Amino acid sequence: MEHKAQIQEAIKIQGEVVRKLKSEKASKDQIDEEVAKLLELKAQIGGDDGKHQFVLKTAKGTRDYNPKQMAIRERVFSTIIGCFKRHGAETIDTPVFELKEMLTGKYGEDSKLIYDLKDQGGELLSLRYDLTVPFARYLAMNKITNIKRYHIAKVYRRDNPAMTRGRYREFYQCDFDIAGQYDAMIPDAECLKIVYEILSGLDLGDFRIKVNDRRILDGMFAVCGVPDDKFRTICSTVDKLDKMPWEDVRKEMVNEKGLSEEAADQIGEYVSLQGGMDLAERLLQDQKMSRSKQACAGLSDIKLLFTYLQLFQVTDKVVFDLSLARGLDYYTGIIYEAVLTQAGVAPVSTEAQNGAPAEESVSVGSVAGGGRYDGLVGMFDPKGRKVPCVGVSIGIERIFSIMEQKTEASAEKVRTTEVQVMVASAQKNLLEERLQLVTELWNAGIKAEVMYKKNPKLLSQLQHCEESGIPLVAILGEQELKDGVVKLRVVASREEVDVSRAALIEEIRRRTSEA
Amino acid sequence: MEHKAQIQEAIKIQGEVVRKLKSEKASKDQIDEEVAKLLELKAQIGGDDGKHQFVLKTAKGTRDYNPKQMAIRERVFSTIIGCFKRHGAETIDTPVFELKEMLTGKYGEDSKLIYDLKDQGGELLSLRYDLTVPFARYLAMNKITNIKRYHIAKVYRRDNPAMTRGRYREFYQCDFDIAGQYDAMIPDAECLKIVYEILSGLDLGDFRIKVNDRRILDGMFAVCGVPDDKFRTICSTVDKLDKMPWEDVRKEMVNEKGLSEEAADQIGEYVSLQGGMDLAERLLQDQKMSRSKQACAGLSDIKLLFTYLQLFQVTDKVVFDLSLARGLDYYTGIIYEAVLTQAGVAPVSTEAQNGAPAEESVSVGSVAGGGRYDGLVGMFDPKGRKVPCVGVSIGIERIFSIMEQKTEASAEKVRTTEVQVMVASAQKNLLEERLQLVTELWNAGIKAEVMYKKNPKLLSQLQHCEESGIPLVAILGEQELKDGVVKLRVVASREEVDVSRAALIEEIRRRTSEA
Repeated sequence: MEHKAQIQEAIKIQGEVVRKLKSEKASKDQIDEEVAKLLELKAQIGGDDGKHQFVLKTAKGTRDYNPKQMAIRERVFSTIIGCFKRHGAETIDTPVFELKEMLTGKYGEDSKLIYDLKDQGGELLSLRYDLTVPFARYLAMNKITNIKRYHIAKVYRRDNPAMTRGRYREFYQCDFDIAGQYDAMIPDAECLKIVYEILSGLDLGDFRIKVNDRRILDGMFAVCGVPDDKFRTICSTVDKLDKMPWEDVRKEMVNEKGLSEEAADQIGEYVSLQGGMDLAERLLQDQKMSRSKQACAGLSDIKLLFTYLQLFQVTDKVVFDLSLARGLDYYTGIIYEAVLTQAGVAPVSTEAQNGAPAEESVSVGSVAGGGRYDGLVGMFDPKGRKVPCVGVSIGIERIFSIMEQKTEASAEKVRTTEVQVMVASAQKNLLEERLQLVTELWNAGIKAEVMYKKNPKLLSQLQHCEESGIPLVAILGEQELKDGVVKLRVVASREEVDVSRAALIEEIRRRTSEA
Repeated sequence: MEHKAQIQEAIKIQGEVVRKLKSEKASKDQIDEEVAKLLELKAQIGGDDGKHQFVLKTAKGTRDYNPKQMAIRERVFSTIIGCFKRHGAETIDTPVFELKEMLTGKYGEDSKLIYDLKDQGGELLSLRYDLTVPFARYLAMNKITNIKRYHIAKVYRRDNPAMTRGRYREFYQCDFDIAGQYDAMIPDAECLKIVYEILSGLDLGDFRIKVNDRRILDGMFAVCGVPDDKFRTICSTVDKLDKMPWEDVRKEMVNEKGLSEEAADQIGEYVSLQGGMDLAERLLQDQKMSRSKQACAGLSDIKLLFTYLQLFQVTDKVVFDLSLARGLDYYTGIIYEAVLTQAGVAPVSTEAQNGAPAEESVSVGSVAGGGRYDGLVGMFDPKGRKVPCVGVSIGIERIFSIMEQKTEASAEKVRTTEVQVMVASAQKNLLEERLQLVTELWNAGIKAEVMYKKNPKLLSQLQHCEESGIPLVAILGEQELKDGVVKLRVVASREEVDVSRAALIEEIRRRTSEA
């Protein structure tokens, strides 16, 4: 009873919170959240009214997939998995939550976005934030020193959702990684080949893959006079160059991060450079850059990378771009990012060969990214044994968004089932005969449906076919049963033909073999 | 600093907890959990040693899937999804967590097993406990009144794991449900047809599908003199009949649940009955049972169900079993459960026809179950509008366990990739040529691999093929390059044949078309 009084007090307070937010015209999300808490409290009191009032919604930043969205999702997955398998990848799966300590210290600033589970008396758990850290944990735990694997699964971030742009709190990641001690740049180049194949295969329009190297960035910072302890923070400012003009980036460096104007300007010169193998060669000769051993190692590897990319026939989309600086702490070598570009962008290879800066292309966002992380597995290994890794993550949610919009815009009707034939009847009292026939079809592996009504109208049976794109109808009537045939109707053309019962399965297979 | 002191104090206390548990020889799980908490506290202090000591493990009751397990998992899924698609099902997906209030009041006693997320300032969330409640929420939220859908996804229960028997805290559910107002027992019968097809298709040995009806159970309890308020608790005791002999069940009813001995004995007579349509007919004539309207409605539906099951050709495995009483509160009509039986069980149909009680068959556990739940969606609808539903859940984790054990026991080598050909060289300095060839193959859609080494030994290239079951090797050498051919080697037979470069792709396709 006393407990109940406490809850009632809490309900009163929470009610005030909601009223206040409403009067302040707070955001809908914020109000919804507080209302949800209020309802939760009310639910605890229970009461005999039986019906609680629900806010019928999914959690903030998440969504259901309806059958149409699932059909598109499956199509995208099938292209991507097809590519991974073509390159000989295995797949693994890991639990949706990890011991909290596994994720600690891996994501820097972003750690605050990790979802923790409530301590219900057991281990402290967190939802996975990406698939890379669980992969590293898996390798260390099982002492695996080489594997080529893909992993497609959902990850969780308590970020500000922007759902129309495909940014969710629950979202798929789609990772391909190669772990193992191999000769330089061969697996790295294969990752880029895979990005190239997937983006071409999904037919998303023109794209470009930017490449850089952590060591080149660090070397560049060093020779430009950035103090060691400012590398990471300056790097994250450089990372904003795809969203902000250079002037603003420079301002942030100088005003907020306290970098000297001279250093900033020197960085500015370098990060405006884009090219191909020629640019790497030129920078190896660059008086300042060549002073950094690290930078030289990175530049030599970029050269080697481009050699392999040429053999893989993908250099037309790849550009060495010194402004690329991916955020994650764990990268140690090559890094890359693929962006979709709007139509009309000059081919990258020409620019690269001329050494001229690329025409400003409007980036519509990153759809893949990755790099080399040789140290991460060692963070999990009790003896710190390293397993070199390189990988790529396909930005599948953004791809889903684009595909959904494309489908919406096109006249194409997305089928959500694969049913080949509907078993129907034009007359009453033929339920048993329909069930018998559909059983024959199912047992022969035909995808078939039957209406769950004793006496459905023929029209409603045909309508269902139209709506869900079922190409054929097998119609039974007294006459057909007497003659031992089935009337096979082609939904699109309305053509009807009598087929003997014995030949029906073959006929359905023949007519739907291309579907 | 003060904060740090607090943590150090907490570390001291937690250290004591761990020592105490160890001295008391507590369970490994319990100790591991407390150690994990200790390490978490230590991690908060950080310190400059850089390396934290990790307990390298997955969360309690969860597991990783390695590539071999994934290959088996995919094979199982493909059979099951094939069946769902054959029956015209669409698929949907829902988020892994729901607003906590969505799950409140749906699982009775078991609610304590729900994983909650930590309140990090936002909505109160819980991990989904099954796929049925999210499905009902989805239907109510989108005002969907009919759909046939499957959903395969992981669910979460803070249960005592028994991992060797396939019981985990994170596990797959694999649900097929038909929602909509249809004529009685047609969709219900299709659910059983689906269970039949899947269990046959997976080749798990003999099985039996038990069927009963909530209304028959309730009617039976009423006519046996069970007080209304004891229906649920007596029902959950009856549910134990598959694990306990009748004497123990009776004892629990009388001694623990306070049922009269007379009522218990009457129940005992009914729950020993098994049969088919004939049993339903007999019970409709039963003096006592026929007094219950509810029971009669259920019995008539069982009769109708068996009519449809005959048309679906599945009666040889289905048995009407009055002892079946599935635990979940939300069932309102027909219920069923499939169990694998050890070899040597007499066919169910004979027993059913004789009306004789079945020979005691040793159940090796339930692998599928489900039933009708006409009220659940209404619990979510603000106006309480009902959407009748019937569905089945395939116990996929137990099936994985069985398949893994079967594969382990057999000589079959499970391939974890689908690579058709390895591009290899016998001589040094042919990396570029290998990369060129593998590019040709990839671009033609061939699944191909190449070693990430400049000069790999031929032996290690061939070994890799043996180990991962790659059937073909395309070998390049100076001579082959000069002649414009590739030496194609069949790994199994060691046969080698020169194939012209132009004909290579066709030749590989031809030789691996059955793989």
